[in-house]
Amino acid sequence: MTQKEFRASAHELVDWMADYLEGVERYPVKSAAAPREIIRKLPATPPDTGEAFDDIFRDFREIVVPGMTHWQHPSFFAYFPANSSPPSVLAEMLMATLGAQCMSWATSPAAAELEERMMEWLRGMIGLPDSFTGVIHDTASTATLSAILSARERRTEFLINERGFSPEMRFTLYCSTETHSSIEKAVKIAGLGKAHLRKLPVDDRYALIPRALEDAVDRDRRRGYTPLCVIATLGTTGSTAIDPLRAIGEICRKHQLWLHVDAAFAGSALILPELRWMMDGIEYADSFVFNPHKWLLTNFDCTAYYVQDVGTLVRTFEISPEYLKTSEREQVNNYRDWGIQLGRRFRALKLWFVIRSYGVQGLQTRLREQIAMAQGLADAIPQSNDFELLAPVPLSLVCFRYHPPGVDGQAQLDNLNAMLMEQLNRSGKMYLSHTKLRGQFVLRMAIAQTNVQQHHVDEAWALIQNTARALMQQTARSLEGA
Amino acid sequence: MTQKEFRASAHELVDWMADYLEGVERYPVKSAAAPREIIRKLPATPPDTGEAFDDIFRDFREIVVPGMTHWQHPSFFAYFPANSSPPSVLAEMLMATLGAQCMSWATSPAAAELEERMMEWLRGMIGLPDSFTGVIHDTASTATLSAILSARERRTEFLINERGFSPEMRFTLYCSTETHSSIEKAVKIAGLGKAHLRKLPVDDRYALIPRALEDAVDRDRRRGYTPLCVIATLGTTGSTAIDPLRAIGEICRKHQLWLHVDAAFAGSALILPELRWMMDGIEYADSFVFNPHKWLLTNFDCTAYYVQDVGTLVRTFEISPEYLKTSEREQVNNYRDWGIQLGRRFRALKLWFVIRSYGVQGLQTRLREQIAMAQGLADAIPQSNDFELLAPVPLSLVCFRYHPPGVDGQAQLDNLNAMLMEQLNRSGKMYLSHTKLRGQFVLRMAIAQTNVQQHHVDEAWALIQNTARALMQQTARSLEGA
Repeated sequence: MTQKEFRASAHELVDWMADYLEGVERYPVKSAAAPREIIRKLPATPPDTGEAFDDIFRDFREIVVPGMTHWQHPSFFAYFPANSSPPSVLAEMLMATLGAQCMSWATSPAAAELEERMMEWLRGMIGLPDSFTGVIHDTASTATLSAILSARERRTEFLINERGFSPEMRFTLYCSTETHSSIEKAVKIAGLGKAHLRKLPVDDRYALIPRALEDAVDRDRRRGYTPLCVIATLGTTGSTAIDPLRAIGEICRKHQLWLHVDAAFAGSALILPELRWMMDGIEYADSFVFNPHKWLLTNFDCTAYYVQDVGTLVRTFEISPEYLKTSEREQVNNYRDWGIQLGRRFRALKLWFVIRSYGVQGLQTRLREQIAMAQGLADAIPQSNDFELLAPVPLSLVCFRYHPPGVDGQAQLDNLNAMLMEQLNRSGKMYLSHTKLRGQFVLRMAIAQTNVQQHHVDEAWALIQNTARALMQQTARSLEGA
Repeated sequence: MTQKEFRASAHELVDWMADYLEGVERYPVKSAAAPREIIRKLPATPPDTGEAFDDIFRDFREIVVPGMTHWQHPSFFAYFPANSSPPSVLAEMLMATLGAQCMSWATSPAAAELEERMMEWLRGMIGLPDSFTGVIHDTASTATLSAILSARERRTEFLINERGFSPEMRFTLYCSTETHSSIEKAVKIAGLGKAHLRKLPVDDRYALIPRALEDAVDRDRRRGYTPLCVIATLGTTGSTAIDPLRAIGEICRKHQLWLHVDAAFAGSALILPELRWMMDGIEYADSFVFNPHKWLLTNFDCTAYYVQDVGTLVRTFEISPEYLKTSEREQVNNYRDWGIQLGRRFRALKLWFVIRSYGVQGLQTRLREQIAMAQGLADAIPQSNDFELLAPVPLSLVCFRYHPPGVDGQAQLDNLNAMLMEQLNRSGKMYLSHTKLRGQFVLRMAIAQTNVQQHHVDEAWALIQNTARALMQQTARSLEGA
């Protein structure tokens, strides 16, 4: 592809991209593709000679796009969103063009220094104390793993890094039953053993019970374990429960436990002063993570990871082979030593574009609108006589289920709601996901997609009710017929 | 930013992008920015209200671009390249627009199935046996960590994942002194202890000596260790040495050691049948990694990780919380369980665009040309009377130093070459990096950037000679003057 062809093709793509983003609502949110439907359309072997870009781009539109689930569709209510925005896409275009690998300061000084500044901006925006220092990771999975490794190394004075585990190193870690699966994955990777991760009970708001934490720590100490680390969550994946940070932090302080705060989704909402109550006690945290790629309009991947003690973080990961030594290393941040991967993309650029394009107030307005939509739905649900809210709605995730009068068996309700979800998602008009809370099948509707507006929520709620009632009538008829 | 503004700005960006790529040679390769020069130009706090995109884009051009080291400059000879290409940039534009998070099949069926097919294409292209199955990781760092974790778990029947280390689990791992730093990092993360990584001596071609491996394994067994894993390298970072796979593989087979092959840079060269001798014995490998983002014209990040036993890989990482369960999970690949991160970008798209745009032959031609350029330089160096080649050149990395007649002290030569590198890089006309081989300071010139042509190499070699000789005259004069 010549430079001239690149220019022409890129312009052509821009028009498709703008059309796509303008018209994304025309697509079914969740792909209707059947398993292996797409791969069968892809040749088993690569071409020997180059193909024209027009053919490749046609196949993209005809094979790939229909097989995609459209995360930027405003009626994407599943999981947590992976929000993008126009300025973020523009930044990704420039990042791809520069093609810089930002492992160390010397390999891209502007990237390293912009990253430092963006982490300061975000810290201020979410009200994190100045004692925290930030670095961009790809995902919360790696940030949480970094936190657990730092906890392990600080406690052992970097001995596990050096010599591996000794028999006396019997560590325990603590989180709630509602904590994200990445915690368990990190505990396994770090060699600490899943059996030593205590999943503590939650209260009726699905938040960790501090008393249960204190009891578990005491019990483990008596049994000869060394309690190491607590993972508290602001905004659990299941229901956005908020663990009580201050009470947990005091226990951590007392027992010298590393406190890692997973605010992957909820962290972005801390740009709203009225929600800062969630972070009361944050000064006790050793590390804190949130994902601008979830709810701050910044393309996946972009995770902000903050620590109180950069020295421990760097000492956990530092490697210094000759070919990476540069003359500036005393004065600058070489972020390769702040995480797992050596290679790094220039992710700070998209934060810069997004924050400047919207301004702090613009971002605040967007989030407040979405939270209000969720609160509206949370108010509407109990007013219907056949739906029920199943968890508090502190942010913009609504957990509920269809519960028609007269249907009370749990298996029946679970099946009914699973069928309801399947039908809703198959409609292409909306996409939601599920979880289990207290063993019950629960529908999760996250109202947080960049472009969601009130009418999308209204239409979804109408569709949910209509689909559920039709499903119930159908079920009743088929029971009568049986 | 409205959709209309996005369209207009994106078109404007495309023209800048095309101009940048056409004119990248006008920039100094390595940024001349001084530490903290860029951050001082960035406001300490974010704007309250949104700014016009024109202002943001102007700052990008005026603050960021001069602070970048230009990885896509054809005279970027440092480290290993992070190659991009026009079709790869186009793919990144579409990836950013779709904004899909490809953790599981259901969240993006086309991404999962395209990834499966691309891994098959690449496997065929590099001549890896069909018994290998591939997955895209972000970097070789995480792929290597995955390999070491899989080795750990297979050997312990997944007991460390479950219960952590037991006192009898005293594992040792093996690599050469020339192995990449990410191996040591992975060993530390996995809790195995850096002290248990045996860095074995290399031969005069900087390749691992199989006999030293066998001796080390025997010695460790006698001392009560359990040898676990060998990391062999095709194309070491220092000098692209090729470890002898077959001999190493036979030892691994005999002692039931996991064999991980790190071909991060050299793997792309396996698309050339005449270089397949490097992988003789590959059937002994349990896992294999290479980076299309280094030498296969695909934007960073994109790592291809292959394993013989997918079951072990998935069992090492699998987590299955309720909110991730989907109905198709038996028939499809949910790649979130094939690595460390839950969230995943749609990286397969760029491989598809690149391979189809160039065709296998187009990629082969590009690599052959670059290898020929490197061989040409490797022939020229010994013909000069004041430079010497310091390692074999099996691929396209040339290791050499300036060694003028009469200067023989190692400290003197090291200093002279460090000064030479500094001057060359400061010129902005080329960028190379260094390593140490047998304790000696060595200049590394990787001739592998997407757009490098013979005249860039010729100009670089002329500049190197002229700069070196001028430096020597200057040094001589200042000694005379002293």
